[in-house]
Amino acid sequence: MNGATSLVKTMLDSGVDTVFANPGTSEMHFVAALDAHPEMRCVLCLFEGGTSGAADGYFRMKRDVAGTLLHLAPGFGNAFANIHNARKAGSGMVNVMGDHAIHHLQYESPLKGDTVGISQTVSHWTRMSPDAASVAPDGADAIRAARSRNGQIATLILPADTAWDTADGPVTAAAPPALRRPDDALVEAIAQQLRQPGAALMIGGTALFGAERELAGRIAARTGCRLICDTLLARIAKGAGTTKVEQLVYPVTPKIAQMAGISTLILLGTERPVAFFAYPDKPSLPEPAGCAVTTLCGPEEDIGWSLQALADAVGASDADAPARFQLDLPAVATGEMSLAKVGQTLAALIPEDAIVCNEAITSGHQVLPLTTQARPHEVLGGTGGAIGLGLPCAVGAAIACPDRKVIALIGDGTAMYTLQSLWTMAREGLDLTVIIFANRGYQILRDELKNVGVNSYGANAQAMFDIEQPVLDWVALAKGHGVPATRVEDADFFAASLRAGLESDGPALIEVVCG
Amino acid sequence: MNGATSLVKTMLDSGVDTVFANPGTSEMHFVAALDAHPEMRCVLCLFEGGTSGAADGYFRMKRDVAGTLLHLAPGFGNAFANIHNARKAGSGMVNVMGDHAIHHLQYESPLKGDTVGISQTVSHWTRMSPDAASVAPDGADAIRAARSRNGQIATLILPADTAWDTADGPVTAAAPPALRRPDDALVEAIAQQLRQPGAALMIGGTALFGAERELAGRIAARTGCRLICDTLLARIAKGAGTTKVEQLVYPVTPKIAQMAGISTLILLGTERPVAFFAYPDKPSLPEPAGCAVTTLCGPEEDIGWSLQALADAVGASDADAPARFQLDLPAVATGEMSLAKVGQTLAALIPEDAIVCNEAITSGHQVLPLTTQARPHEVLGGTGGAIGLGLPCAVGAAIACPDRKVIALIGDGTAMYTLQSLWTMAREGLDLTVIIFANRGYQILRDELKNVGVNSYGANAQAMFDIEQPVLDWVALAKGHGVPATRVEDADFFAASLRAGLESDGPALIEVVCG
Repeated sequence: MNGATSLVKTMLDSGVDTVFANPGTSEMHFVAALDAHPEMRCVLCLFEGGTSGAADGYFRMKRDVAGTLLHLAPGFGNAFANIHNARKAGSGMVNVMGDHAIHHLQYESPLKGDTVGISQTVSHWTRMSPDAASVAPDGADAIRAARSRNGQIATLILPADTAWDTADGPVTAAAPPALRRPDDALVEAIAQQLRQPGAALMIGGTALFGAERELAGRIAARTGCRLICDTLLARIAKGAGTTKVEQLVYPVTPKIAQMAGISTLILLGTERPVAFFAYPDKPSLPEPAGCAVTTLCGPEEDIGWSLQALADAVGASDADAPARFQLDLPAVATGEMSLAKVGQTLAALIPEDAIVCNEAITSGHQVLPLTTQARPHEVLGGTGGAIGLGLPCAVGAAIACPDRKVIALIGDGTAMYTLQSLWTMAREGLDLTVIIFANRGYQILRDELKNVGVNSYGANAQAMFDIEQPVLDWVALAKGHGVPATRVEDADFFAASLRAGLESDGPALIEVVCG
Repeated sequence: MNGATSLVKTMLDSGVDTVFANPGTSEMHFVAALDAHPEMRCVLCLFEGGTSGAADGYFRMKRDVAGTLLHLAPGFGNAFANIHNARKAGSGMVNVMGDHAIHHLQYESPLKGDTVGISQTVSHWTRMSPDAASVAPDGADAIRAARSRNGQIATLILPADTAWDTADGPVTAAAPPALRRPDDALVEAIAQQLRQPGAALMIGGTALFGAERELAGRIAARTGCRLICDTLLARIAKGAGTTKVEQLVYPVTPKIAQMAGISTLILLGTERPVAFFAYPDKPSLPEPAGCAVTTLCGPEEDIGWSLQALADAVGASDADAPARFQLDLPAVATGEMSLAKVGQTLAALIPEDAIVCNEAITSGHQVLPLTTQARPHEVLGGTGGAIGLGLPCAVGAAIACPDRKVIALIGDGTAMYTLQSLWTMAREGLDLTVIIFANRGYQILRDELKNVGVNSYGANAQAMFDIEQPVLDWVALAKGHGVPATRVEDADFFAASLRAGLESDGPALIEVVCG
């Protein structure tokens, strides 16, 4: 077999059976190898930003890696923004980047570029295979690296001759190294600290959903500490029955107010909170002066073990019932449209176990708080601040969880970055309802300009903030990609459209025209 | 004034008055500064790939730099593929990349990324301003760098505090350093060589259009050498009256046949020709074994001076009439559609001085040869092999040359990479006709798979090569972006649609359904 086939077999033998692909002329042998292995699911994305965003969404739900197939340095560049987002989400992925045959790299051919350099700016692990025999062991190492430390970005660069030359058989990826665990003394010390007034436990990663979230709730119930989480989250359980966690808000001033009174901050599965962006005369760190910040367990360490150890140390048990959100379904909203009514109708109709991908940067803040007492669901959010994640992330989540309904809440400015993902939704027949919030501008920028002290602006700023003249027609854009769509301008039609989207088992798009 | 204002004034004072922008939260002070200077033209692109591609097209026509405004490392990532293409085209541009305030960079905030690292993988010149007072001199240096060596990629990284802190006044960019020129002995030696049998002069850069092309034609007429040029060209004059140049073809085997008989190859404004991609058992270099390859003048050296020196050395004068293409307009094609008929009708209707942006990767080879005897026009092509250049490049060319008609020939697979540029065409009311060749797949990949010896393929390869199920509806996609569009399936309607597009002074799109 050739190197390309040895890699496909290595991936399959190692349990990696999904590839989000956008192949180019450098990956033809890899395409041929994929073609000979129909048990590998190949999902075509019409732009590389779709591949990396989908691999991120897939990992968030599956907690295991998919592959991407990228075309030399420019292809990696196109995927870069969503690889950045995935890195910040703690998602693992295996990027396979084609390159020129090694003997061809000495020439200034059109596609010659710094494949290793661009990978290293964002990947945790980068390797270029030197020959065909190395491809299978390198591929196994890449998969192991991608599964390490709760999920990493691993990029394997394959010069074309390493794909077409003769290789040995496949290699099964070794298990990733054991996750680092805090020592007993630290666990004990923190167990004491959490019982003091002003203590807060800030959780992240897998502690935000499932059994680990429940455990965190018990620790809070037992110790009386505050249980908080960061603003931008890869995945969080929400709705009826979930244990209560306070999420930090985005703007700096209210974030600081939210953290007032915290004198001891314990981090478990998350980084220290920091302002999204620096402003003149505002602090980067939102916690009160003098607050002691201690990491029990970083995002790349053993979150589940740390939670259990801490629960044991504080003596938490089944008897420590955490505070929970109760089911309280509103009626669907009627009459004139508003963002609050979108949230209300969403809360009324969101199906149990739905996955909500949220990249409605500004509108989401007015919509999502309303689903707190809806049926239990999970929310996947932006983590790296690079827009264009939402649609591809929804693709990946829908492919990872074909039995769950996926709802994507996306701002119009953001959606334009990776709108090609609509086509993949249609091609794959994904069970997915996309809601586009057409505020027809970069609302976040209007807000940010105020944040830096500019309160009125003229033609050039308006030209850069408004997506008008012409207005984007999302019904036409969706139709162009093969996705059925409706435009809604009142709450009743929104409810009817959302119901129809959720009842269908294919993709649908709803353009909500709403400032 | 603050650092941001000092940069805007520096750009204007230095003659840089056009910015292709996609601002993010890190560039608010720069946006405010642009807003205060309406003499700076700000063109909004809804994706950063549109900004860099437009700056490339602008430079190719204007032969001077525009700015781009990019948002941290992910924004640069989105722009990367077309920066790569611009670099390979020899186009200069000034990228202004925002970053976090310097005191904020120590924290793991969501958008923290390797801004310097990603820039250095593709820019000729990268600098991060350390403080506000440095922004104006750094900006002037960036402009000078971008104008150096016939055009370079210069990237200035502005931490937010360097934009908002107090700065001194603007700085006018110094003239770029003098271009390197070949010494007299080399010119004389080459003048001798060109008179020998088997000599070929291969030209590139500015030698492909205008007065320099004419000079190259006289040198060929005087010496009897072959006059050739590379496959992928940033800009070339074409049509009636232009001096004849043989363009090397894309596939390796016919390229080798084309170069047979060349024993002396002189490079003037171009790199040594090399196969686009390596294949098993095919050479990377297409020239015959033993062919002597000599560079008279690299693409970054003084092409105009070198041409004149060579013309003087061979004794070329007005009397040496070069071979020229003669005007020979066909009738517009009628009846059933074919790519040849598209070329025929284009040849019949293409207006004088039109700019044709060609990114119809496979269809273009069947269309463009037919315009050789059309009215004089210029063709801008892909140079770096990264698809998604065509639509943004057309935007930049149309903004650089508002008095010339622009026609974009784009493959459907390619167009999907940067389709957001359609909106910028509508917003700016550009005089531009886009022809999309809907072969509904990545035809180049079907061809390349054959090139590596795979002649039949199954479901996975088909899934990755075909853009069907669903078919893209380009009329709807164009409408969604605010561009009027028609779908044509016969030659008569194509002629009518092209006429209408060219008569209109705004954008129009024609979807040509043709395998």
